[in-house]
Amino acid sequence: MRKIYVTILTLISIFTATIIAQDTPAVSDETQECIDCHESLTPGIYADWLASRHSKMTVGEALTLPEQERRISVSDTKGLNDSTAIGCYECHSLNAENHKDNFEHFGYDINVVVSPNDCSTCHPVEVEQYLPSKKGNAHFNLKNNPVYTLLVNTLVPADEPGSAHSVAQDQSCFACHGTEVKVEGMKTIDTDLGELEVPILSNWPNQGVGRINPDGSKGACTSCHPRHSFSIEVARKPHTCGQCHLEPDVPAYNVFLESKHGNIYKSESHTYNWTDVPWQPGEDFRAPSCATCHNSALADADGEITVERTHDFGSRLWLRIFGLPYSHAQPKEGETFNITNADGLPLPVTFDNKPAAAFLISEETQKERKDLMGSVCISCHSTSWTEAQFGNLEKISAAADKSVLEATGIMSEIWNKKIEDNTNPFDEEAELLWVKHWLFYANSIRYATAMMGPDYAAFKNGWWSAKNNLVKMHSILKYKSK
Amino acid sequence: MRKIYVTILTLISIFTATIIAQDTPAVSDETQECIDCHESLTPGIYADWLASRHSKMTVGEALTLPEQERRISVSDTKGLNDSTAIGCYECHSLNAENHKDNFEHFGYDINVVVSPNDCSTCHPVEVEQYLPSKKGNAHFNLKNNPVYTLLVNTLVPADEPGSAHSVAQDQSCFACHGTEVKVEGMKTIDTDLGELEVPILSNWPNQGVGRINPDGSKGACTSCHPRHSFSIEVARKPHTCGQCHLEPDVPAYNVFLESKHGNIYKSESHTYNWTDVPWQPGEDFRAPSCATCHNSALADADGEITVERTHDFGSRLWLRIFGLPYSHAQPKEGETFNITNADGLPLPVTFDNKPAAAFLISEETQKERKDLMGSVCISCHSTSWTEAQFGNLEKISAAADKSVLEATGIMSEIWNKKIEDNTNPFDEEAELLWVKHWLFYANSIRYATAMMGPDYAAFKNGWWSAKNNLVKMHSILKYKSK
Amino acid sequence: MRKIYVTILTLISIFTATIIAQDTPAVSDETQECIDCHESLTPGIYADWLASRHSKMTVGEALTLPEQERRISVSDTKGLNDSTAIGCYECHSLNAENHKDNFEHFGYDINVVVSPNDCSTCHPVEVEQYLPSKKGNAHFNLKNNPVYTLLVNTLVPADEPGSAHSVAQDQSCFACHGTEVKVEGMKTIDTDLGELEVPILSNWPNQGVGRINPDGSKGACTSCHPRHSFSIEVARKPHTCGQCHLEPDVPAYNVFLESKHGNIYKSESHTYNWTDVPWQPGEDFRAPSCATCHNSALADADGEITVERTHDFGSRLWLRIFGLPYSHAQPKEGETFNITNADGLPLPVTFDNKPAAAFLISEETQKERKDLMGSVCISCHSTSWTEAQFGNLEKISAAADKSVLEATGIMSEIWNKKIEDNTNPFDEEAELLWVKHWLFYANSIRYATAMMGPDYAAFKNGWWSAKNNLVKMHSILKYKSK
Repeated sequence: MRKIYVTILTLISIFTATIIAQDTPAVSDETQECIDCHESLTPGIYADWLASRHSKMTVGEALTLPEQERRISVSDTKGLNDSTAIGCYECHSLNAENHKDNFEHFGYDINVVVSPNDCSTCHPVEVEQYLPSKKGNAHFNLKNNPVYTLLVNTLVPADEPGSAHSVAQDQSCFACHGTEVKVEGMKTIDTDLGELEVPILSNWPNQGVGRINPDGSKGACTSCHPRHSFSIEVARKPHTCGQCHLEPDVPAYNVFLESKHGNIYKSESHTYNWTDVPWQPGEDFRAPSCATCHNSALADADGEITVERTHDFGSRLWLRIFGLPYSHAQPKEGETFNITNADGLPLPVTFDNKPAAAFLISEETQKERKDLMGSVCISCHSTSWTEAQFGNLEKISAAADKSVLEATGIMSEIWNKKIEDNTNPFDEEAELLWVKHWLFYANSIRYATAMMGPDYAAFKNGWWSAKNNLVKMHSILKYKSK
Repeated sequence: MRKIYVTILTLISIFTATIIAQDTPAVSDETQECIDCHESLTPGIYADWLASRHSKMTVGEALTLPEQERRISVSDTKGLNDSTAIGCYECHSLNAENHKDNFEHFGYDINVVVSPNDCSTCHPVEVEQYLPSKKGNAHFNLKNNPVYTLLVNTLVPADEPGSAHSVAQDQSCFACHGTEVKVEGMKTIDTDLGELEVPILSNWPNQGVGRINPDGSKGACTSCHPRHSFSIEVARKPHTCGQCHLEPDVPAYNVFLESKHGNIYKSESHTYNWTDVPWQPGEDFRAPSCATCHNSALADADGEITVERTHDFGSRLWLRIFGLPYSHAQPKEGETFNITNADGLPLPVTFDNKPAAAFLISEETQKERKDLMGSVCISCHSTSWTEAQFGNLEKISAAADKSVLEATGIMSEIWNKKIEDNTNPFDEEAELLWVKHWLFYANSIRYATAMMGPDYAAFKNGWWSAKNNLVKMHSILKYKSK
Repeated sequence: MRKIYVTILTLISIFTATIIAQDTPAVSDETQECIDCHESLTPGIYADWLASRHSKMTVGEALTLPEQERRISVSDTKGLNDSTAIGCYECHSLNAENHKDNFEHFGYDINVVVSPNDCSTCHPVEVEQYLPSKKGNAHFNLKNNPVYTLLVNTLVPADEPGSAHSVAQDQSCFACHGTEVKVEGMKTIDTDLGELEVPILSNWPNQGVGRINPDGSKGACTSCHPRHSFSIEVARKPHTCGQCHLEPDVPAYNVFLESKHGNIYKSESHTYNWTDVPWQPGEDFRAPSCATCHNSALADADGEITVERTHDFGSRLWLRIFGLPYSHAQPKEGETFNITNADGLPLPVTFDNKPAAAFLISEETQKERKDLMGSVCISCHSTSWTEAQFGNLEKISAAADKSVLEATGIMSEIWNKKIEDNTNPFDEEAELLWVKHWLFYANSIRYATAMMGPDYAAFKNGWWSAKNNLVKMHSILKYKSK
């Protein structure tokens, strides 16, 4: 009797395995040759790829899906081999002519770093949305803005006096913003298969969002879609955003985790469908993750798209609650280093909170974006609730701005009385308190309301810290003046 | 051959689906009309409700369960419609006469905010336990205590000078403690189904534990049982408590996560049964979550209740380790604003650590509660272990109190020497250090032992921070005196 | 028709249950007697044991497995009862003659605390690796080092003036490092089964890694393998290391959680095989946990061991990035209190960063260990990537050391000018800043690169904090000199 059920179980397993096996297309000869070695040499990334959609589908098969369920954004297979899966060679051999990191690898010309320009072969819309965004320009937004560069150089030591670069800066600020990866020559390394000549990459490894790549392109898709599974589940879960959007300066992830949304995520996310495209509130998930509100394509119960997918992560936002030093309307362009305010500084607001309006989105655009974000909220919240929540965010941003204005007032007095010297506004005691005021505390207060994690507005980098800061700044003004 | 197994698999699925489908009762006509629109308008909350026990069972069916397995605490269906599930209309139409937030909504009179008074229709025992507790009074315990109100107003700016209220306070302190939600009039909003007149709620949205509701009642069951799934799994997991019980002032959640209990929870909780009522240590779970020790009904291997469920979350506690400014016996009543100590202040201890004994539970009650909590511990720990652990907590609380006494001594000297002015004891440099001493550091040290996350007693807001604080307070005393 | 499928489902369940049931060996008569009471008295730990491998296998059965799949390291059953599972009595009765905590318990002589010496009955290799390591000596490394003892006594109050011990120290520093558990007599306790005389243990409960046990042995296997499931899943997940390796001083866990590895762990770890021995990258897991890199046995696709298991957790490390006060080559021996540097202090480097080379591993050993760790990385990363990552770590460690040297220079000047007194270097304002510099900030900067969580090098205890610290130390030097 037992035998029969063992047989049934075994056959069910075989049958299931067969279904799965049937889905997997062949790989190209070149990729097969990669796999022949790398399956055992680097089993982790081989397994990642095997778990990926790239291993399971040809471009042509992807194109047979309804457009809104696709994850590629080309409309035909022109120029793309359609008989095979997307394997090692298909990505690592693209646009070799641009790749300074291309090298001869056992008879093949291989690029070390696959860039957004390479990914755009199949995902052009995503790359077109991403590149002009703040994220796509994250390297230059730090490097080309003299105010931010001064902050970086003041805080993090350069390799040599006078140098504007260091491993320490690459491993802190530019780890998230993206380094400039350059090819500095070739070197010979020992491998299990003998000597191999490989490119020497500087400022590497790095997966920062605005990385400058050896092919001259910007960005790193792998920031959010870790190689080589490029999993939509990983990208949609909050932990991906949580690699960089962290307290004390950008506590988005931390606030989310302490919010009601975060509570439900932590308790129930194992019951969600993390891979459905488009993503249906209610059907696929209940409480949102970062991706839900900020970039995923959402659909209603009939599968109709209600909010379009975007890879410009600021495009559903109207107010920029990351104060520099005050909150302000989102910048029109992702290249924020081009902004000039009325004081002539490359900042979106002046020290007395006058916005550089010409560089910021209009009230009309703000309204459109607020409606767009609202259309996400109403999957679970009434119109009244949503409006009240947005209203609270705007009031809180103004309250935090007022507190920054007070701190800036004390700072000015400290500078005016020559207690500290504003040649470099980032290197003395009160100055660093002032930076904390807008960069840590005012931001925390705003994020706490934006994503409803109130402890970040109370005792944790919130009003408590802001009050402490003002008291300390006053104390410096009182005790250190002549 | 394959066909046969496909058929078997399909039939198994259909059969399983049928079993589940059979459990779901009909909904009332009114609720059906809600669903007709809201299923597509707000699919998230519809899905939440669909996943809830409310959608799956009538009151009568719930009453057929053995009493200790029930989640309702009425004893008969008198006055309750028993032919339908508990749907939208069943809750949002209750006690309309009390609800200032009631409005006409497409032919129905609907309350926006469902209150504990409404929930008590089926869950009277839970509400009766909750309302007189510290949590049920969390709004008034802040608002009606002049010392705490002064702290709130000093830290978090009011909307206008002289005002005792602000959005900033609602979005920080009162986000957890609960706001006062008031109806301020009506407004017309645009919806997909045309214009709609809805109530304008002030200090909203809010889910704080002591919220004042538009029907005049106190509390928000949704603080811990998020609408509309009201999931026991969510309430039992630590992330619910972790919305508010957070470092630096109440690091219960943080300490738990770093404890052995937290380690096992994070590693193994996917193997637990999170919904069984009563909850059986060993059978349903191994390491406890917050709810296990503080409020769930626990049963032994035979299903006999060993510890009763409570919604007065302090009722298994003897010592209040949240120092104000010293640890003390738990207050007799949840309305802590009624306490007056020997100095005439509304605090449970004086500044020289004399307890307001008349307002605190007796030694006998303390002993009873310690035994009650001990009866939870012994599911996994020996009597000796448990006693030693409780002994350590009491010794550590005394050690932390001693450190607060030292800080208070320095503070007094600073006030006596007029270095700072104690008219407002919360607004100068040493004063804020002194507040940190009892509110952050002494609390962390006590919670670290209570729930065994020792880093909170060492370098993270523990003894390290307390020592730093004393040194800084001494420094102010030394350098700022005449 | 339904009946047939119910029958099939039922039979499949029974069959599966039978397979599992067949695996479980009998328990000894003594253990059965323990279970007779403890199954209902302490159901949590009974369930833990039931879930453990100890309940499921005899020593003899374990020995039938291929050697590399075993979790015991004895080679025969000599001296061990092989007809029964490893139950309560098998462990709690071992080596009774050494156990001062042995007591008469309903006719049996039982040890309260099972020690590594007891575990070594079946797991001798693991204990031999562990005991001489830094972890195995964690109690003495704190207690026998006069510099660290001074730090402990300065920060955490002793029970009495002059005493070198306190419950507060046990509940903070020694909670992780391990207390000295001593038997201080016997006491009579009330239990459900009548009065019972049990040993009084001091400094208990404790599960610190270097605990001194009542049998005179060192260590606590239960630090990482929580009783009584001793789950390999728990030990391999990062939360076990995360009980102690925490910010601000040792932010290994925190940095991991914010890294790409941590992101993938949090998103995908539910798909991993956490119990396979040896552990196969790619096959069993993708992104590593702490255990993967630091101690697990890893195998290639053919099941051949590529990296041996170790319970000396420092043995794959070459550089010690936990600065004391600078980074340095790993110590040769785990008993670090034996180190003496050129200044005669028990520290691995002098204050001007001269290593105590005689006590530290050679460059050759460092190279061997780097190759060993590299052989873990190359499961997923190229040789070039790995080399670049290791190079970055070394450069960052040097940069952090340079910053500590600058802080130490200011500190020396403060001491030389008698602004502070270096008799105790841990109890004044600038001194505590200086301690933070090397213990918190330089460590965070190094860990951030080591495990790729860059925020810990930027604004969170990283370069930002280090800069703030230097500015504050300069300020003390400037404003507090005569």
